[in-house]
Amino acid sequence: MTVLPPALLASAQTVITRHSQYHTMVATAESCTGGLVSAALTSIAGSSAVVERGFVTYSNQAKADMLGVPMALIEQRGAVSAEVAAAMAIGALERSLAHMAVSITGIAGPGGASPGKPVGLVHFALARHDVPPLTQHRVFSGDRDAVRLAAALFALELLAG
Amino acid sequence: MTVLPPALLASAQTVITRHSQYHTMVATAESCTGGLVSAALTSIAGSSAVVERGFVTYSNQAKADMLGVPMALIEQRGAVSAEVAAAMAIGALERSLAHMAVSITGIAGPGGASPGKPVGLVHFALARHDVPPLTQHRVFSGDRDAVRLAAALFALELLAG
Repeated sequence: MTVLPPALLASAQTVITRHSQYHTMVATAESCTGGLVSAALTSIAGSSAVVERGFVTYSNQAKADMLGVPMALIEQRGAVSAEVAAAMAIGALERSLAHMAVSITGIAGPGGASPGKPVGLVHFALARHDVPPLTQHRVFSGDRDAVRLAAALFALELLAG
Repeated sequence: MTVLPPALLASAQTVITRHSQYHTMVATAESCTGGLVSAALTSIAGSSAVVERGFVTYSNQAKADMLGVPMALIEQRGAVSAEVAAAMAIGALERSLAHMAVSITGIAGPGGASPGKPVGLVHFALARHDVPPLTQHRVFSGDRDAVRLAAALFALELLAG
């Protein structure tokens, strides 16, 4: 019996093992997953060598304050957008000692959908120094719990690279 | 089948319900739980009205950078101490729009124990405006997962207060 689902722990273990080998550290910037990615990573013994810090930027103001995401960008593109995901990941990288930062911003549901942005839409970005951020998005099916779990797993895959 | 244990979700639901009633918001400052408290809170639909932001300050540098905990205090008292827990909660309150902030710093194990600070020792603080922070500590038994779960539950109880 573990606190988090085995699939999440297995992915977290992969991230911790790989980054431990290379002596690299990671940071997380989470909106819709709300800390689930950092909770999974830190559930692994020895994770303190890899997990530098995490930002749970649930509100738009938190995205602006903690990660430097321009409020104008949030207003223009929406908090759930590739542009905001990229700005979140870059902000987390710049505001940490990590070598790599992942961001997650999406609509976990049941509310929050808007035209062109269905429940289950999640944008991700992966930022590293000296290269442009990688952005991706997915539309996950299922309820709030299923969307959050799928999003956390995807973010861990990005970190495992 | 839920992502997080039912006990954690029930406590998170209590926090969200209570703070929704009073239109108050909360912030989290997590070290050993690594985002588990914010993950539990945000698993509840409607939590965006209550969860303002979260700080996952796993490293000492993160505690200093993100929450303003003096590095000298960490060196003198140790990261797992009532004094650092209090400074973390106050820092989270001052660096957010929340009305209440909880902090968690402890030794989840299996490593990290030191004389007088066994595995399972977790310090908590609850900060609100205009009153001194409340600090408490517990020594939880069990493995890393059990300690983290017990610590997350205790922090949610503090927030539900």
